[in-house]
Amino acid sequence: MGVIVQFDFPFPGPFGPEMEQGLKDLAVSITEEPGFVWKIWTENAREREAGGIYLFRDRPSAEAYVAKHTARLAGFGVQNARAKIFEINGGLTQITHGPAA
Amino acid sequence: MGVIVQFDFPFPGPFGPEMEQGLKDLAVSITEEPGFVWKIWTENAREREAGGIYLFRDRPSAEAYVAKHTARLAGFGVQNARAKIFEINGGLTQITHGPAA
Repeated sequence: MGVIVQFDFPFPGPFGPEMEQGLKDLAVSITEEPGFVWKIWTENAREREAGGIYLFRDRPSAEAYVAKHTARLAGFGVQNARAKIFEINGGLTQITHGPAA
Repeated sequence: MGVIVQFDFPFPGPFGPEMEQGLKDLAVSITEEPGFVWKIWTENAREREAGGIYLFRDRPSAEAYVAKHTARLAGFGVQNARAKIFEINGGLTQITHGPAA
């Protein structure tokens, strides 16, 4: 069933297409991380926040990624990144069509 | 492309199958909310936290749900629920296979 990684943090921008242009190579590299399944890139230009929701195959992969990405964000000047790892309740997620199978 | 709703909060349990049993009817009702697309149910028994990641079709639907669910959680005794609404960066999400189309 995999595990969810949830990141969010203060972010000054850029957002939207400009963010996409700047982070395309990073996005490709993330798909090659051990245990990676998918990531949704989240952004809120009004509140100046960004983050991501990820599915990983297992908790060790998720923990390794959280450590790596937290350090990378610090390198981008992003402090106070909030990262959480969650198990998935499979039965309830199935009822609500969650894409986590 | 839709918007992401992210909830997490302290939760004493139950988790896993027992949580599933208790919240099945709620899960079915959530699928009938305006603008709802999917929900992944998140839980962490060790840290005693739970939450959910949702895709909604648009921000007004997401905002209405956040208000409704925050009040419902308070009724369950869940205080300090943390809710965030994010836009999705479509280009980057496509690269990383995010299920948000």
